[in-house]
Amino acid sequence: MTLFPEMVEQTLNTSILARAKNNGLIDFEAVNIRDYTTDKHKKVDDYPYGGGAGMVMQAQPIYDCYIHIVEEIGYRPRTVYLTPWGHPFKQQMAKDLSKEENIIFLCGHYEGVDERVLEEIVTDYVTIGDYVLTGGELPAMVMIDAISRMVPGVLTNCESKNTESFEDNLLEHPQYSRPAEWMGKKVPDILLSGDHKKVDEWHYEKSVERTKKFRPELLK
Amino acid sequence: MTLFPEMVEQTLNTSILARAKNNGLIDFEAVNIRDYTTDKHKKVDDYPYGGGAGMVMQAQPIYDCYIHIVEEIGYRPRTVYLTPWGHPFKQQMAKDLSKEENIIFLCGHYEGVDERVLEEIVTDYVTIGDYVLTGGELPAMVMIDAISRMVPGVLTNCESKNTESFEDNLLEHPQYSRPAEWMGKKVPDILLSGDHKKVDEWHYEKSVERTKKFRPELLK
Repeated sequence: MTLFPEMVEQTLNTSILARAKNNGLIDFEAVNIRDYTTDKHKKVDDYPYGGGAGMVMQAQPIYDCYIHIVEEIGYRPRTVYLTPWGHPFKQQMAKDLSKEENIIFLCGHYEGVDERVLEEIVTDYVTIGDYVLTGGELPAMVMIDAISRMVPGVLTNCESKNTESFEDNLLEHPQYSRPAEWMGKKVPDILLSGDHKKVDEWHYEKSVERTKKFRPELLK
Repeated sequence: MTLFPEMVEQTLNTSILARAKNNGLIDFEAVNIRDYTTDKHKKVDDYPYGGGAGMVMQAQPIYDCYIHIVEEIGYRPRTVYLTPWGHPFKQQMAKDLSKEENIIFLCGHYEGVDERVLEEIVTDYVTIGDYVLTGGELPAMVMIDAISRMVPGVLTNCESKNTESFEDNLLEHPQYSRPAEWMGKKVPDILLSGDHKKVDEWHYEKSVERTKKFRPELLK
């Protein structure tokens, strides 16, 4: 549920997500909240009671948009509201949400959404990080990307192997591709040796080294 | 620098960012890495040395794309690579980066980028959170949104007041807009009282309450 459906659809119809959609593994639809306002000027926000900065998205258009979706799918699905005061999104949450048949994402604006409609429809308050964004669209797409990757069949075996490695709390080792020498920089000899055991050991060492250097807290 | 320029441009040309661009306050351009490959089949990736999952983006197209941008702007700007092993992106980093005249974002794929070109061009390794995404495009857009909001003039006074409140480590209080009663739910009386002092106190109390409940670690 968004005020910028074209932004969301263009972005989601790219890359791995588009492939998964074409293969019938996932589906997504951007529903325009503005289509559900009963205001004759198609207004969806108004001043906050008590004063304060910015405009507040009103309850009615969001609720009617929500009910339309609920009637289509036949039940009230988990409904995520993207907000700085939500639970931090992590890989484990992506995994959990990937088991849901349907998820609604409510994309608000930073200025806010009428509290009463949040109470009525939201099941999960989520934030993707401690930074302020203009709207919920980008974080919703981030979540949709991460969640979709956890749906069985969306990733090829090769691709999912990489995702799993992150779950071991180890960062990826350095990668090298052709040519073997570029701008005077050579690929480490061991990677050209053909000795798989040694290559695996080197990969593991480099992963630990990088994790220690950049994200030591992941090792705890 | 991306392999999906149309995805990036569509998304950034929305909302507050589009307004800021039209007002000449910020500018952004998606540069297609594929335009810089010297491979006759326009290939930009290849198998990793030493084996392993997926394909690795090669050094040459990325480096030549980078040099093209550097020649255009006349110096080597801060260059951000979006990667799970980067420093966590926070509001303070958005503020710092907003002072830069130019920033390059290198959007890789999760499978990786040849380490040698990273060594050559990247100044800042950054992650937006502990979850695995398909590519660097979404996180780059998240960063561009957060950073642009910190550029003077991009936000109106009202809008920036909200952003600052987050910097006090307090979450936003609940918001209400018309009507005063919706689905049997009434706006708290105090917000209709017209007593600004009491309203401010209520806002502050509710912010502290919400922060304690949902993100107690912000208060430390």
